[in-house]
Parts: sequence; C-alpha cells; structure tokens
Amino acid sequence: MIFSSVLIEEAVNEFARLPGIGRKTALRLVLHLMKQDEAQVSRFSETIARMRRDIRFCRTCHNVSDAEVCSICKNPSRHRETICVVENIRDVMAIESTQQYNGVYHVLGGIISPLDGVGPEQLYIDTLVKRVAEGGVNEVIMAISPTIEGDTTIFFLSKKLRDFPVKITTIARGIAFGGELEYADEMTLARSLSNRLPLENYVRERSA
Amino acid sequence: MIFSSVLIEEAVNEFARLPGIGRKTALRLVLHLMKQDEAQVSRFSETIARMRRDIRFCRTCHNVSDAEVCSICKNPSRHRETICVVENIRDVMAIESTQQYNGVYHVLGGIISPLDGVGPEQLYIDTLVKRVAEGGVNEVIMAISPTIEGDTTIFFLSKKLRDFPVKITTIARGIAFGGELEYADEMTLARSLSNRLPLENYVRERSA
Ligand SMILES: [Zn+2]
Ligand SMILES: [Zn+2]
Repeated sequence: MIFSSVLIEEAVNEFARLPGIGRKTALRLVLHLMKQDEAQVSRFSETIARMRRDIRFCRTCHNVSDAEVCSICKNPSRHRETICVVENIRDVMAIESTQQYNGVYHVLGGIISPLDGVGPEQLYIDTLVKRVAEGGVNEVIMAISPTIEGDTTIFFLSKKLRDFPVKITTIARGIAFGGELEYADEMTLARSLSNRLPLENYVRERSA
Repeated sequence: MIFSSVLIEEAVNEFARLPGIGRKTALRLVLHLMKQDEAQVSRFSETIARMRRDIRFCRTCHNVSDAEVCSICKNPSRHRETICVVENIRDVMAIESTQQYNGVYHVLGGIISPLDGVGPEQLYIDTLVKRVAEGGVNEVIMAISPTIEGDTTIFFLSKKLRDFPVKITTIARGIAFGGELEYADEMTLARSLSNRLPLENYVRERSA
C-alpha cells in the first residue's frame, strides 16, 4: 500500500500493529477517524494513553484496577469469604458480566503450562495461599477453563490449599470440555457458576 | 460487559465506536495495549491525534496531504498533462499502490448519487473543469467504479469537459462489472489502467 501522506501512513502503521488488524482495516479506521471532529479523535487518543498510564493491578487480587485496591475488593457488599480463582482479568470481566457472583476474585496471571514455560512460580499462587491462610475464607472456587493446563493448575492449587479449612469447588461443566472460559456466553457461565461442584466430584469426573 | 476498571471501560468504549469493531474486539485491543510499553502506547495515541490535527486536503487535487499541496502534485517527475479522476482518497492509494501511474489526480469527494442526496454541486467538479480550462492537460482518465452511480458521474463529467481539447478515457473493464474499484487487487487495477479506453468505447459497451 502506498500513501501520499506520511501522517496517514504512520497512523495506519500504528493501527496495523494491533492484533487482528490488517493494513486494509487499519486504513479504514484511519480514514474514519480523519473524518471525525478533532475533539473526538483527541478524546480517543487521550483515553487510550491515560488507560495505559494510569492502570494498575490490585494488590489483593491482581485484577486490573484504577487504584491500589480494585473496585471489587473495595466494595463492602462483596462477600470476602468466597474467592473465585481465575486465569486472567478477561475471566473476571466474563464472570462479572453474569451479575451472578458476589464474592471476590484472585487472578493467577496465567495457568501452569510446562510447554509454554509457565510454572507455578510465575503465577500469583503464593498470594492466594496467603489470603486463605489469613482466615475468613470459606470457599475457593476454581473458575478455570477445563483444559489439560487448567486441570494441572486446579490440582496444584488444591494441594497447596488442602491443609486449610476451606471448601474447594470447581465451576460446573457447562463450559464445553476443552473450551476456553472467556468465550462462554453469559448464561452458560452464570449457570456453571451457580451449579459449582466440590472438587472431589471434578476429580471423579476427570478420571472416569 | 462489566468492567471493574473505569479506565478500561472508557478505552473499550472508544475503540468500540470505530466502524467494524465490536465490544469483544475492542476489549482485546485494550488488553493488548495495556500490556505494551507505556512509550509505545503513547506513540500510538499521539500518532493518531497528530494525523487528525495536521491532515489537510490538497488545494489542487483534493487528495489528503501533509501540506497545502500534496506530495503527488508537488512531485516534479509526475506528468501534469494526465489527470486521473477518482471518487475518493482510497482510490488514489489503490492506484498509487500499482506503481503504474505517473500522472496526477483529481479527487471528486464522492460520486453522483441522487438516492444518497449527492448531486454534482457537492463534488469537486468545478475545480476539475478549472484545471482542464487552464490548459496543459491532454488526458482525463475516469478511474471511477463501473456502477450505475459511476456511469452517471462519468457522463456528467464528460459533458462538462467536452468543449476542451482533452482526451477522455475510462479505465479498462478489468474490474468486475458493478465492482468497487478500491477492492480490486493491484494487478487487475494496474492492467485496467494501462488498457484504458477512449470514452466512446465505454459508451458503446455500456449501451450494448
Ligand atoms: Zn482486587
Ligand atoms: Zn494534490
């Protein structure tokens, strides 16, 4: 693609760096923005820059946050005795969108995946154990995708937590086997969460 | 979708305002940018804002431009005696990308389309006539999509230019009939441009 404007070429290059955005799509976006009010485009650009500059991670649950502690951990109406363990912040958003869950979260920052070089020490597992050890937690829900890596992670975590007086559950098999949690529709996810099972059932199922 | 961060929510809203970007895609883009270096994201955001702030339209050909006169009109090695008339700046980019054309352009800013309320007076037709009237132009190539609106525009322009000593040609039918010029591949477009026909042939074809 040949541009007669360096301004446009640079803007297209920036958009085309984003995942899933090819050069034709990038051009279409740039030409769209070119036609918008300057104020509107500057709001677009400032909002993105501010997001990156000011975003933080909650020091308690490792979810994205606008402050040191995230809006979920800070919310006094959320039940602190239930911790829902998820792989990443997209899973928090997916579960929040069901509007069925009123506990708090713990974001692992990934799952154990030896093939990708991700071991337990790269994940926020110690901070989860610490939260449980501090007491006041009744239940830890493993809301982790039912894949091989997910299973490995669930079993590793359950071993780490086994000496604490805490119920460990997994979300119900509403999610297609081998499926990624974040792509589940809200209804399936909500049902899967409310039908959650004790870990023993999961182990039984998975080894059957 | 429920976000636990206002920063992310606002950034997603901004991306989701772009054409063809749904909320799931917007979220994916935002989460990607969240993981990039702050410097990289600020370059992204500044490049977009600068593009919108500084972009202009060439006072000669109405193409996008980084200055008062565009890089094509300014280029001394381009042949000023050939003007290629196109609907929009995307068509200029498509033709430039063939690297087969060495004349200059005239961007109409649309095509005549009574159904969309676009008449000749909304297009840059007067400035084209003025350029031709000023002399030094041998050929006007109508590089306009062969649709009903395209035909209407071609015939309107050819009437306007008929009293000037200028050859009027149309690009060859390499482009699928009824097809949009900007979606043609570069090879087809290049061939279509080099096999261009005198307008009479086009009229004969279209009324056959
Ligand atoms: Zn938190
Ligand atoms: Zn120009």
